[in-house]
Amino acid sequence: MANVVEVVTKSILKIGQDDPRRVIHSMKVGLAVTLVSLFYYFRSIYQDLGTTALWAVLTVVVVFEFSVGATLGKGLNRTMATLIGGVLAVGVHGLATQCGHIAEPFLISIFVFFQASLSTYARFCPKIKARYDYAFLIFILTFSFISISGFRVRDIIDLARDRWATILIGVFGSLLVSILVFPVWAGQDLHNLIANNLHKLAISLDGYGNTYFKIKENDATHEIDTPKLQTYKNVFNTKGAEETLANFAKWEPSHGCFRYKHPWKQYLKLGALSRECAYKIDALDERLKVNIKVNENDHVHKFRAICNRMTVEASKTLKEQASALKSMTRTRTRTRTRTRTSSCKVYVAKSKEEMKSLQDLLKSTTLWKDNEDQLLHVISATTIISILTDIVTCTEKIANCT
Amino acid sequence: MANVVEVVTKSILKIGQDDPRRVIHSMKVGLAVTLVSLFYYFRSIYQDLGTTALWAVLTVVVVFEFSVGATLGKGLNRTMATLIGGVLAVGVHGLATQCGHIAEPFLISIFVFFQASLSTYARFCPKIKARYDYAFLIFILTFSFISISGFRVRDIIDLARDRWATILIGVFGSLLVSILVFPVWAGQDLHNLIANNLHKLAISLDGYGNTYFKIKENDATHEIDTPKLQTYKNVFNTKGAEETLANFAKWEPSHGCFRYKHPWKQYLKLGALSRECAYKIDALDERLKVNIKVNENDHVHKFRAICNRMTVEASKTLKEQASALKSMTRTRTRTRTRTRTSSCKVYVAKSKEEMKSLQDLLKSTTLWKDNEDQLLHVISATTIISILTDIVTCTEKIANCT
Repeated sequence: MANVVEVVTKSILKIGQDDPRRVIHSMKVGLAVTLVSLFYYFRSIYQDLGTTALWAVLTVVVVFEFSVGATLGKGLNRTMATLIGGVLAVGVHGLATQCGHIAEPFLISIFVFFQASLSTYARFCPKIKARYDYAFLIFILTFSFISISGFRVRDIIDLARDRWATILIGVFGSLLVSILVFPVWAGQDLHNLIANNLHKLAISLDGYGNTYFKIKENDATHEIDTPKLQTYKNVFNTKGAEETLANFAKWEPSHGCFRYKHPWKQYLKLGALSRECAYKIDALDERLKVNIKVNENDHVHKFRAICNRMTVEASKTLKEQASALKSMTRTRTRTRTRTRTSSCKVYVAKSKEEMKSLQDLLKSTTLWKDNEDQLLHVISATTIISILTDIVTCTEKIANCT
Repeated sequence: MANVVEVVTKSILKIGQDDPRRVIHSMKVGLAVTLVSLFYYFRSIYQDLGTTALWAVLTVVVVFEFSVGATLGKGLNRTMATLIGGVLAVGVHGLATQCGHIAEPFLISIFVFFQASLSTYARFCPKIKARYDYAFLIFILTFSFISISGFRVRDIIDLARDRWATILIGVFGSLLVSILVFPVWAGQDLHNLIANNLHKLAISLDGYGNTYFKIKENDATHEIDTPKLQTYKNVFNTKGAEETLANFAKWEPSHGCFRYKHPWKQYLKLGALSRECAYKIDALDERLKVNIKVNENDHVHKFRAICNRMTVEASKTLKEQASALKSMTRTRTRTRTRTRTSSCKVYVAKSKEEMKSLQDLLKSTTLWKDNEDQLLHVISATTIISILTDIVTCTEKIANCT
């Protein structure tokens, strides 16, 4: 029992330790809900809005998201959809009341049916789903709510207006807390995620260079640091996060080094390239895991040395790109980024040189001609070369992308 | 202008053509909203529930999802969270009223703040996020709504009860329409998605065999059918969809051949293996795109023939697995599936034989010993062999997984 409590406590604490902003966010939600609920306690506001004043609180609970972009996107979607849905519902209600009290529910039901069906159908459109899905949901909600209410409530325009006003209060309160209290910017998060991914790839490549290609002194075997080698695997699963963050970032106003309409799409391209690179490192990993015993000789040493330099250069390119990205937000010095990109190009050129000399080495060596049993090693070596070539080409693409 | 209308119309129609169930789903949402809204028109129900009757309509709009599993999951989350949130809020309100009318809002504000903060924090826990995220949202919503209402509304227990009853009506209505009118099962969708992915890989492999490895008769060049070859690329991006569907499927009751607690996790494993296979086909694609001119001779023919057979066997294995999966839902004959799996094993064994003979061929041939310029071809050929080996091993894993 004590064990279970310990495990649960640890996992609860871990959530906050992994990202302390989660603790702050939780308190921000509490603060925003409490702040907006104060409106309900003031007699003057309550007398104006009545029980609909509580919609402001509900809006905060539903709209308040982790990043400013997500909150802003949801808030704008909700406000606009409530306005349009409310206006249309008032119009439809006016039309239905013209037809008498008996026909009214039938007419409204027909309108509600078609409106709900068409809006639901529209939500399947990929472009709408990406940015306006929530707006369409709220549109159906508001339209149905106001138009059906009209059957029992007489002052339907007041109802629509109050609903919109309270939602506006809720959205405004959420945004205020979201932006003023330790704001979390989706754009900044996307930026960091991409830079960290590049860095992770570099760390893995470094690891492979050190573990497999470094010439061993005094016959010492290098330890295999599996967690370090496998860092690249983290890059596989960030596609969804990248797309979500890019979507949120589009809603965000200018902040720090990011202007409105910052080229967020470029980050998605970089993300795709890092994943491409990660899959190539995965292929390399699979090759290297098959540990073929090779007699150490000059050729093998030469092969190792060149492979090692290739991984080192590729890793440097990635590290430079990662730190160029990271520093952009702080230093803003374009020249610095430019020198870095050009030094990346030098690394890429060097890597290509190494590739060429590796092929030359294979051509000139007689190692695999004299001994047929060495064939498997040759197959293995050639595959490793071709994968390294791919990795270098991929890092070049990454260097050109930023 | 006419052009824009045409493009928009086409893209609207395409949504329904891609999956006609979308049209049905849209109408189901309209139907459910309209059906539940009828409650509001009946005087007897309205007299019992008052304006809270509209919560039923709002519940339908929010809870009705594409598949039965998603609707059921959201519905259960909402019902349970409203119940627990309501009961706790009534308790807290009772406590607060004991302290007098002036202290009441302060006490309630403190409770609301802590409740919202703690629940938001809990939503970060991965296990909760995956299955109960919506429940925690609704818990915050209901708790805040009922406890704050208590300050102005006297019969707070009635309010909590009515809210719960209307939400129950909404959920029940949604489920009824979702299950009775052309139900869409997330489990079936997941099943089909995985089977189709395996089939897509098989089609691509077939294409590569035909385009690159078939011996050309009368010097005819095979046409490169790029869309067919690239079918495997569709498999890359279904990870998110698979996880979402598996999550929904867990909520679904027994239906068709799927019992409650069907091993949905197994499908995720198969999905991961298909993606692994797709990335290997991608590596093959990259190799084959580099079109090296080779003098046609016996060795090259032999190499081609063996590669062709390897792709054919790998493709057959995948096709068998795909159709075994598909037929499971219809025939339920275990023996048939068993014969199929065993025939898959035969294909895998055959592929491995081919692999061995390919290596033997490389060993015995003198092609690349006499001519140093052929080295590049040897590098290319060995890489292709190793990738094909990987693909065959991967298909074997897939055959063993089901």
